[in-house]
Amino acid sequence: MFIHNKDLQFEVRVDRPDPRFATLLQEQFGGANGELKAAMQYFTQAFVLRRKNPKMYDLFMDIATEELSHLEMVGSMITMLLDGLNDDLKMANERCDWMPLVATADGKEQAVHQVAVNPLFLALSGGGPDVGNSAGTPWSGAYVNANGDPTVDLRSNLGAETRAKIVYEYLKQFTDDPGVQETLTFLMTREVAHYQQFTAALNELPVNFPPGALAGDDRFQNLAFNMSNGAGSVRGPWNEGQGPWPQGMEWKYVEAPTEQWLGTDSRENHGVDTNPQGEPEVRGTKPFTHEHHTATN
Amino acid sequence: MFIHNKDLQFEVRVDRPDPRFATLLQEQFGGANGELKAAMQYFTQAFVLRRKNPKMYDLFMDIATEELSHLEMVGSMITMLLDGLNDDLKMANERCDWMPLVATADGKEQAVHQVAVNPLFLALSGGGPDVGNSAGTPWSGAYVNANGDPTVDLRSNLGAETRAKIVYEYLKQFTDDPGVQETLTFLMTREVAHYQQFTAALNELPVNFPPGALAGDDRFQNLAFNMSNGAGSVRGPWNEGQGPWPQGMEWKYVEAPTEQWLGTDSRENHGVDTNPQGEPEVRGTKPFTHEHHTATN
Amino acid sequence: MFIHNKDLQFEVRVDRPDPRFATLLQEQFGGANGELKAAMQYFTQAFVLRRKNPKMYDLFMDIATEELSHLEMVGSMITMLLDGLNDDLKMANERCDWMPLVATADGKEQAVHQVAVNPLFLALSGGGPDVGNSAGTPWSGAYVNANGDPTVDLRSNLGAETRAKIVYEYLKQFTDDPGVQETLTFLMTREVAHYQQFTAALNELPVNFPPGALAGDDRFQNLAFNMSNGAGSVRGPWNEGQGPWPQGMEWKYVEAPTEQWLGTDSRENHGVDTNPQGEPEVRGTKPFTHEHHTATN
Amino acid sequence: MFIHNKDLQFEVRVDRPDPRFATLLQEQFGGANGELKAAMQYFTQAFVLRRKNPKMYDLFMDIATEELSHLEMVGSMITMLLDGLNDDLKMANERCDWMPLVATADGKEQAVHQVAVNPLFLALSGGGPDVGNSAGTPWSGAYVNANGDPTVDLRSNLGAETRAKIVYEYLKQFTDDPGVQETLTFLMTREVAHYQQFTAALNELPVNFPPGALAGDDRFQNLAFNMSNGAGSVRGPWNEGQGPWPQGMEWKYVEAPTEQWLGTDSRENHGVDTNPQGEPEVRGTKPFTHEHHTATN
Amino acid sequence: MFIHNKDLQFEVRVDRPDPRFATLLQEQFGGANGELKAAMQYFTQAFVLRRKNPKMYDLFMDIATEELSHLEMVGSMITMLLDGLNDDLKMANERCDWMPLVATADGKEQAVHQVAVNPLFLALSGGGPDVGNSAGTPWSGAYVNANGDPTVDLRSNLGAETRAKIVYEYLKQFTDDPGVQETLTFLMTREVAHYQQFTAALNELPVNFPPGALAGDDRFQNLAFNMSNGAGSVRGPWNEGQGPWPQGMEWKYVEAPTEQWLGTDSRENHGVDTNPQGEPEVRGTKPFTHEHHTATN
Amino acid sequence: MFIHNKDLQFEVRVDRPDPRFATLLQEQFGGANGELKAAMQYFTQAFVLRRKNPKMYDLFMDIATEELSHLEMVGSMITMLLDGLNDDLKMANERCDWMPLVATADGKEQAVHQVAVNPLFLALSGGGPDVGNSAGTPWSGAYVNANGDPTVDLRSNLGAETRAKIVYEYLKQFTDDPGVQETLTFLMTREVAHYQQFTAALNELPVNFPPGALAGDDRFQNLAFNMSNGAGSVRGPWNEGQGPWPQGMEWKYVEAPTEQWLGTDSRENHGVDTNPQGEPEVRGTKPFTHEHHTATN
Repeated sequence: MFIHNKDLQFEVRVDRPDPRFATLLQEQFGGANGELKAAMQYFTQAFVLRRKNPKMYDLFMDIATEELSHLEMVGSMITMLLDGLNDDLKMANERCDWMPLVATADGKEQAVHQVAVNPLFLALSGGGPDVGNSAGTPWSGAYVNANGDPTVDLRSNLGAETRAKIVYEYLKQFTDDPGVQETLTFLMTREVAHYQQFTAALNELPVNFPPGALAGDDRFQNLAFNMSNGAGSVRGPWNEGQGPWPQGMEWKYVEAPTEQWLGTDSRENHGVDTNPQGEPEVRGTKPFTHEHHTATN
Repeated sequence: MFIHNKDLQFEVRVDRPDPRFATLLQEQFGGANGELKAAMQYFTQAFVLRRKNPKMYDLFMDIATEELSHLEMVGSMITMLLDGLNDDLKMANERCDWMPLVATADGKEQAVHQVAVNPLFLALSGGGPDVGNSAGTPWSGAYVNANGDPTVDLRSNLGAETRAKIVYEYLKQFTDDPGVQETLTFLMTREVAHYQQFTAALNELPVNFPPGALAGDDRFQNLAFNMSNGAGSVRGPWNEGQGPWPQGMEWKYVEAPTEQWLGTDSRENHGVDTNPQGEPEVRGTKPFTHEHHTATN
Repeated sequence: MFIHNKDLQFEVRVDRPDPRFATLLQEQFGGANGELKAAMQYFTQAFVLRRKNPKMYDLFMDIATEELSHLEMVGSMITMLLDGLNDDLKMANERCDWMPLVATADGKEQAVHQVAVNPLFLALSGGGPDVGNSAGTPWSGAYVNANGDPTVDLRSNLGAETRAKIVYEYLKQFTDDPGVQETLTFLMTREVAHYQQFTAALNELPVNFPPGALAGDDRFQNLAFNMSNGAGSVRGPWNEGQGPWPQGMEWKYVEAPTEQWLGTDSRENHGVDTNPQGEPEVRGTKPFTHEHHTATN
Repeated sequence: MFIHNKDLQFEVRVDRPDPRFATLLQEQFGGANGELKAAMQYFTQAFVLRRKNPKMYDLFMDIATEELSHLEMVGSMITMLLDGLNDDLKMANERCDWMPLVATADGKEQAVHQVAVNPLFLALSGGGPDVGNSAGTPWSGAYVNANGDPTVDLRSNLGAETRAKIVYEYLKQFTDDPGVQETLTFLMTREVAHYQQFTAALNELPVNFPPGALAGDDRFQNLAFNMSNGAGSVRGPWNEGQGPWPQGMEWKYVEAPTEQWLGTDSRENHGVDTNPQGEPEVRGTKPFTHEHHTATN
Repeated sequence: MFIHNKDLQFEVRVDRPDPRFATLLQEQFGGANGELKAAMQYFTQAFVLRRKNPKMYDLFMDIATEELSHLEMVGSMITMLLDGLNDDLKMANERCDWMPLVATADGKEQAVHQVAVNPLFLALSGGGPDVGNSAGTPWSGAYVNANGDPTVDLRSNLGAETRAKIVYEYLKQFTDDPGVQETLTFLMTREVAHYQQFTAALNELPVNFPPGALAGDDRFQNLAFNMSNGAGSVRGPWNEGQGPWPQGMEWKYVEAPTEQWLGTDSRENHGVDTNPQGEPEVRGTKPFTHEHHTATN
Repeated sequence: MFIHNKDLQFEVRVDRPDPRFATLLQEQFGGANGELKAAMQYFTQAFVLRRKNPKMYDLFMDIATEELSHLEMVGSMITMLLDGLNDDLKMANERCDWMPLVATADGKEQAVHQVAVNPLFLALSGGGPDVGNSAGTPWSGAYVNANGDPTVDLRSNLGAETRAKIVYEYLKQFTDDPGVQETLTFLMTREVAHYQQFTAALNELPVNFPPGALAGDDRFQNLAFNMSNGAGSVRGPWNEGQGPWPQGMEWKYVEAPTEQWLGTDSRENHGVDTNPQGEPEVRGTKPFTHEHHTATN
């Protein structure tokens, strides 16, 4: 069960209305990497963990709930950027005289000449946020990745926190409002903190590579194809030497796939005899130690 | 700020796994009238009310938070319907052996023969809910109606609670599981309670008809067009007599619009002289008493 | 069967091209509360009424057909706003030299500096409307609510007309063109008229509360939860006293749900014994009189 | 303005309920090539033609209106397939006891075991059509192609009619109901008739190749690249000989683009000198006679 | 299997950054008629042809692969328009200092005042293209038409090439950059070439009218309805005379459908006796010669 | 530029038609984690790298191109599962007699009784794949994450490969066809190989934590909130001790945020004095060594 507390998690201050920055900020309200996405992703992932892994369930619900609280902060910031009210101002009128910009003849003229502000603010949402991104595209459940396996979901979350962090970083380029900057700094930093929380959790899992339960098939695994020819094909730890593989494994490199791979035994003699069920063995033990995502000194 | 309490608002019991009912139940998790939509709708509407109408802000956040708690119940129910676990069962394995149906050869065969269960359960979500509806369509921010005017938002919410109620009613036809029935009864009834809460709030607003701030234009207002001809055109309080109009107003009826309306003065002499700004006067006082949405005995 | 008449339902006049207002006006062509949504909603709802309730079928098809005629008006207005032609101007060239703004070097420069006009007008639609909203999001079938029960569909329609009305009201703030203002006034007022038609129809239904056929469960019905704590929790007719309930029923209020509700009998002793089928009784008679949505003096 | 006539354009007969065929038939109600798409496409295209090409405007509105009438037929058919009522049966009850299948214990059991019927029929739409396709995806404004140039729009319409025809053809494979077959035959044949109407209109345009107003650039025009190498590269009238080009033009063929094209003069010496504005000349006269889309004997 | 060559198919030159034109150009990257749509459409259509019609498979894969190469060109052009780099400039820094516009105080100010550039460029994509159209709507698989029948797919492709051509034509109006103009000319012309390739292929099919395998039903075929009455109903080869029908067939015209068609034998006596299976005969032989889409002199 | 080779990267064998497994397999053709998503994601990310980081450009295009080749394999597999043809069978007929299941009366009956197969296969796609997922939802450009910063994009790719791997793992549960199993094993293993390639590339970046260019703000960084109270709040390396932070940093834990955080100096005294620009310092040097994603023994 959720309980709401009327205080925001962190003070939201806005020094002046700025409908265009509100437009950009929608990216963190209803965008693909925004707070609603984060909240819904960790919340949805948590269901299968409730009984099976209560520790992780606790972690996921903690962060999901914090992201909901951030969503509330972002929505408040957008509302203030649209009507120029600070969090501590008093205002009592029943009717919604939103966007003082529009309340005067000048302001109206000005607003119309900036339809570059989200048109939905003018025609539809009446002064509050829209459940969409900066381009006005509605939020989609397809943004949420929840696949029922903690080694998978935690990696999805590392990616999600990463993108949320960079979006705040981009947004900070487009406002000089010190109150907004301070709030964005708080929100951006929390994504870094969550990233580290998920990293620690992934490192705790007894077996976490590869993601999921099935091991890869040795015939196709530490193999790199040069699919993009012409000048500039590059060798590096991602296609030569040991790379991130365990001791004893090395990258094999297929320089010219159309000649060295198509029609060869490598491609076709893929051992129905050696593995008649076509089923790689399930990884039963922890095959590699795994230093993962750690940021140690 | 939100805080999460690990107890569900209402006990969720599931007597046996039923992936097909879980498929239908997705309609209330990520469907157009489901709990996520309701939570996000009232939450989004609340931002403009925070300073301008704190009473309504309190009401909207109360119900938004309860709907989030219902979303958690529905997601839990789906998860249990997929893996056959009751809320009070213990299970400790780290890996996600979801859907015991699939764990045996028979069960697997059976599951495959019912791909009528949401394919996303099999191919993607790994035992938890999907953020989409019963047909697998992702939830969309476009489901949310939030327009910044309480006389509008409250009416949107009456419609939303109405649809949520009927969807639970339809769903109750498709399960015999007593635990599921009991939970659905709780959730369905809460929609009725919310409907009444919003009704009471709308009745409290000093002026609430028409929705918004501008009055209609008298020339086009209590006027009904017979647009659908042929046998069976019907007269009733929606196009004759006083209908729901205040004393002194009556429906005017255009029986044959192509003859009586097109090209007539009614259509063309629409008074640029009488109203040169083309702007109806703003409704400044409460013109009608208004008995609204009440269900009195 | 539909028949089209080449006259518009109401004269559309545009005094000067204004691509930016055309951008905003898209909200009523292909937006969530626009004319296409209204037409498709009432049309889709009508199918189940054709045999079962021919009176309502007639009403729904009348209004659906009028909304289609309004869609035609809005599309005509957008087209004129884009190319600066009045309804009564003659123009004969075969090729589409739309948007005279663009036909000169100056105009082209100017148009490019206002990409804030819908980019789809420039890159895609060639001078006509786009089947999307003001932000360019395509119209979606998900906008339509049609649930097969008239007590539900009528309430959905009251919400829909309400939102359509407020969108016209918002739009009227952003244009000074007297012709456009006059047309918007007609269209906005028609939404008010439809609202009243649907209200009258809902009042005619013998039983209309709660929506649908199943009554609520008394244990969970006139019950309000205080889910949103902190300073400012408010009591009012939505959570104390009789509110909109029939005589003899009163709101019960749960002040602190985590303490007074979780783990209590209220939550858990939900009477499998008293109602073993988990099925609330079907409402067979008209339990309340119902003064609904009326705007009487 | 539209007027609705209560008769259907063509009698719809359904001999027995078949919710699964109703599921498939949704493809023509709210699918990418269905009747709503066709109606909205021709209707949207018509706006720019109203003044500029009144003949075509008349043709487009005729067919748009007929497609709306077909949409009504398809929706009626779906409704009947869901509740087993023929067009000429009488039924008077106010409430919506749709889908008799569900009204008995057996029928309910049976329906649940076929969730392969559109889950939205069970959980949401209450016996009527859904504004989506056979997989439950909502109809999208993105289905509509309307680009403001008749040589373009007419070709889009030829493609659209083609696809609508094949979908009816596919659907006819999945029902044995003679009434449904007869109605589908009518609807399928009308698509053929519309295809021919649009063909005739395209042939009437004085200049119609290439689509639009700008001619292609001779350097890149009758040129075919062999991009897909390996065994089986084929020569034919699409890459050798005259093909559909006017007398005197012939296909040029680039057999090995990576060798014969990249880095050659053909690619790089693209004549900034010969065409400094980078602007191909506008096609001013009708360059080719054009026998188009005709099906003559 | 695909192989990538690091050279672009055609040189992409951009003389100066222009984020607003980049915004418009997105229409050809991720829009409904853009290069990704074309590539995916022909690629998806090709699967059923691989064994059944290897000639066409070769043609479809050739063009699909060329469209992928065009997608790469468009994406490169957008990237350059955003950061002002020409294809032959060198730049070595590891970090992504994209959009020099933003790197200075002035530039930042300027960028913010043009949020009319795609907000996703500022808040999300970090200097590269977005997989969406000019209005920021994500690309959708629904853009792709692939129906498994070559007479259908080829006609869909003629429509698709047509629209892609006109979009390039529109885009060319909004840039004066000679490098961009030259590249657009190449891309636009290639659409014309592909149009002719598909035309030639359609003409090669032994039977190609009507699309698909079933013939139309004679009773409903060469029949035109006047659905759109009022002044200005027009007769032409699309509803009178022979039109594009084979010798011996002529248009029948229903002037007043509500009187001459509804309730008449024409509509109702549709010969269950003459065609008890409701199944038109399958077209077994090539009924018409067919001069199609040819542009001969 | 892309070149296509008519051989598949890996032999695709299908022993018997299985339209239901084809339905599930759509998840990897047009689903959120499928091959099209992967191809488009790496391809889109590559544009900003072309000049700025040619090594990574080469890596990203290599893998993007391989994913395109996998998309071709998955589409071929779906096509074969629908029509029962092995890769090495010959078939020559021009018309598309797809799905032999449907060609006989029995087969047709059977197919209809399994509409649980994707209805789009029956009504729309004519024997080939659909550009959508297993539930028929169209592929969306919103699936693609491309943010212009390699430390971000590489982490997005690790998440993407992870999810693609688990989807293949889930799919392998639902088929016994040895040919299909073998192909799925190849494709699943390639995701593991790509995961390792991206891991190696991320380790090569000189500074890669936090993602992006701005460091977090120390006041809000190694701080964990207990947002989800009730029994079972858990401490672990994600909220106590050093966790993944560098030497000298430790988690700070806020046990009861509503009491210990709201209204405290920690929340409000966030140092406008200490950081008047509200701008955290840009991370200029590599602060931590970073062992990342390696799977070493």
